[in-house]
Amino acid sequence: MNKEYIASAYQKLQASICDGLEKLDGKSTFSSDKWDRTEGGGGITNTIVNGNIIEKGGVAFSAVYGPVSDPMKKQLGMSDGDFFATGISIVIHPKNPHVPIIHMNVRYFELSDGTYWFGGGIDLTPHYVVRENAVIFHQQLQTICKSFDDSFYTKHKAWADDYFYIPHRGESRGIGGIFFDHLSESNTTLSKDRLFEYCTKLASSFVSIYSQQVSFGKDNFFNEEELKWRNLRRGRYVEFNLVHDRGTKFGLYSGGRTESILMSMPPLAHWEYDYNPSKGSKEEETLEILKSKVDWI
Amino acid sequence: MNKEYIASAYQKLQASICDGLEKLDGKSTFSSDKWDRTEGGGGITNTIVNGNIIEKGGVAFSAVYGPVSDPMKKQLGMSDGDFFATGISIVIHPKNPHVPIIHMNVRYFELSDGTYWFGGGIDLTPHYVVRENAVIFHQQLQTICKSFDDSFYTKHKAWADDYFYIPHRGESRGIGGIFFDHLSESNTTLSKDRLFEYCTKLASSFVSIYSQQVSFGKDNFFNEEELKWRNLRRGRYVEFNLVHDRGTKFGLYSGGRTESILMSMPPLAHWEYDYNPSKGSKEEETLEILKSKVDWI
Repeated sequence: MNKEYIASAYQKLQASICDGLEKLDGKSTFSSDKWDRTEGGGGITNTIVNGNIIEKGGVAFSAVYGPVSDPMKKQLGMSDGDFFATGISIVIHPKNPHVPIIHMNVRYFELSDGTYWFGGGIDLTPHYVVRENAVIFHQQLQTICKSFDDSFYTKHKAWADDYFYIPHRGESRGIGGIFFDHLSESNTTLSKDRLFEYCTKLASSFVSIYSQQVSFGKDNFFNEEELKWRNLRRGRYVEFNLVHDRGTKFGLYSGGRTESILMSMPPLAHWEYDYNPSKGSKEEETLEILKSKVDWI
Repeated sequence: MNKEYIASAYQKLQASICDGLEKLDGKSTFSSDKWDRTEGGGGITNTIVNGNIIEKGGVAFSAVYGPVSDPMKKQLGMSDGDFFATGISIVIHPKNPHVPIIHMNVRYFELSDGTYWFGGGIDLTPHYVVRENAVIFHQQLQTICKSFDDSFYTKHKAWADDYFYIPHRGESRGIGGIFFDHLSESNTTLSKDRLFEYCTKLASSFVSIYSQQVSFGKDNFFNEEELKWRNLRRGRYVEFNLVHDRGTKFGLYSGGRTESILMSMPPLAHWEYDYNPSKGSKEEETLEILKSKVDWI
């Protein structure tokens, strides 16, 4: 299983995820933007807007290669040589405040000295946290993890809790999920093939996992106050992505393709000085959950 | 002229700027939020929303002190000891897309070893750049600079061009203005008193400078397309502030008061994948100006 095989599998997964999301949405379809990278490789950024369910979403695939750049040496501690990186990245901003934002990413990195690693994860950002739905989400991830390694769910759930924390707000971006990076046969019990299957299993489960979360909230009525709260939470999403997300920051600082990186931005975000939800409101309840670490299972 | 005198002058300037902006707006008034800092000092964050002119704005004053923290040592290269920092920071997001966003900041920093410096600046971010208005803005700043030092305008204009550049977009945040930092009697021709006067002159000129810019556009009709463009440009403002602005980043990473730092965020910001204004439109014209460096005078 070489890098071209992995990239090709990711590209096929991108296409099938977009098909699945179009069926889920039932109205809008993806626009496809193919781009080339001057230094080597390129990608396909698929975006969708103004659907029944999805207000703005993106499913991006890329496979890029070339000499290890100065920012990679400086910020990722790499040595001279060539790299190859391929992955899928998804962010969906739904219209209905009762449907959560979702993010999925799988990636593979290889250096010309033969080292390689896999990274990825899925995490959920409900505007309103519903405990039962969060538990179902985490159970599904746990089931996937278990079929690969008994320790993965616990480890990768903790990794997500840590990664998606917003220090300047003292809160989590959402209810977490799983996150992992730099996995290889040298630091796990799995072979390279099995690690690849772990990533593709996550990607191929994405539509079904999200469809279920969508089904819980998509028919809920929502009012102006709930839209305002949705937009405030989207503001937090922007803050996390632009201030803390290591992938976004590295991409922007190192001359990555801005439009593909910032495909994660919401269609509309709102900020209000020192906004505090009223006592006993469901907005306050969500905030309290986001300010604490929860073992969902 | 000691640090308490400077802080007190800045606090008075905050009050008179808020008075002036309320008169300019003619509808909304500022809410005042006084806060204390556990480690020493505090501030007053004045905010205004839903005015005739101003959709969301903030005029913040702070005077904080205490032991030099680890982030200050690490990121600002300071040594052990105590610091004192005071300043005013303003960001105004107007309702009408034909009125520019404005930012003003003056700050004073002192260390227990006796070193001190002043920093500050004013810069303008029109959603639509009107060359004549930009020239007037720069001329006013040049006039102020000239009354202190013949080299200031050229130097501090170039500093602003450099500071407010958004590398990942290849464009400027706006039409610049002046920006300066670490000024003291040791690296300028001016005494400490005169540097202080340079800062207070900028602050006391702020309302009149902005009032003129407001007058150019406030009665212009605007449509949905122009509101969309305004919100897209606000998205760029968010990107600059959260990804590149050194003050914002340092504040958020070092445990500064989040609500006061992020008072600069717009009320509503919009993102659209790979948005390109149509050929020959005034949006395209603005973008072309922002992608080039302009000597306005």
